[in-house]
Amino acid sequence: MIRPWPRLDSQPVFDAGLFSVTRDRTRSPRTGHERDVYVLHMVDWLMTVPLTEQGELVMVRQYRHGSGEASLEIPGGLHDGAGERHEAGAARELAEETGYGGGVLSFLGELRPQPALMSNRVRIYLARGVRRMASAQPDAGEDIEVVLLDPSEIAARIASGEMNNAMTVTALALARFGGQL
Amino acid sequence: MIRPWPRLDSQPVFDAGLFSVTRDRTRSPRTGHERDVYVLHMVDWLMTVPLTEQGELVMVRQYRHGSGEASLEIPGGLHDGAGERHEAGAARELAEETGYGGGVLSFLGELRPQPALMSNRVRIYLARGVRRMASAQPDAGEDIEVVLLDPSEIAARIASGEMNNAMTVTALALARFGGQL
Repeated sequence: MIRPWPRLDSQPVFDAGLFSVTRDRTRSPRTGHERDVYVLHMVDWLMTVPLTEQGELVMVRQYRHGSGEASLEIPGGLHDGAGERHEAGAARELAEETGYGGGVLSFLGELRPQPALMSNRVRIYLARGVRRMASAQPDAGEDIEVVLLDPSEIAARIASGEMNNAMTVTALALARFGGQL
Repeated sequence: MIRPWPRLDSQPVFDAGLFSVTRDRTRSPRTGHERDVYVLHMVDWLMTVPLTEQGELVMVRQYRHGSGEASLEIPGGLHDGAGERHEAGAARELAEETGYGGGVLSFLGELRPQPALMSNRVRIYLARGVRRMASAQPDAGEDIEVVLLDPSEIAARIASGEMNNAMTVTALALARFGGQL
């Protein structure tokens, strides 16, 4: 039985706007010893696995500032906050990044992106039957190329290193493990 | 064609020991506009999908300070640095967290855990035919329970929320997409 570690204190130590860091005092329920851990806080993420009526994945190739390289990814982004329904946020990110929409959205699952370090969640959706409704509207900080991909290509694109974002592999895996892909 | 954004400058702005943050000045190759981005740096991660000779997954249930809850995960941890071969580090983490070892290790893939924000990589291995060699030796900051799981249970454990670490789903997905699981 793994018991929770009580959080005795939490102090803000860094704020980057997009994310912030706290130093939290915790106590092991097994040994009684106290220790400090750092926790990174940001809003929840939303991702969508979009499939056209022809069964093609709608993906985006984009440059990533953390890795310093481009990768082939599932569309997604940040939840806009308490005023936005999760499903609406997922559809908004899909439309902004790809211009696709109009499909039927279903919930694939909620995970922790990096539970050792981050306190947020990622909610992942499937969108069946999407079609191109408009041009993509990327943010100023994004360069995005829309790519249609046959799902049978997934393993090869991962193996080649082109699809190297773990969160994209996770989203595709939820659809695969659930039998929808 | 998605071109790289030149990194014009990088300033350290926070150091938590386990990870650090830089504020980097970049320039869009599309618009020419400059902007600041924050990048989180830490050592690479190593994960192993361990299978016993009977084909059971060797997993760990552990408490996570970011999410504030326990989850059922693939063993893994931090690369010890330049002096350690990646394969040796993966086997070390497997032994420390589970007490299992002795199998045949093969490379499943290298991904970016969170390329929008983080500069590091995760290397994922498969270990076939592992067996219990010793007791687990968790770090002081870890409470770990070893769990053997039939791979046919993966989808149900994800759906129940028990297996909610996206990195674990990613590691299992690499094995599944590659046809090894």
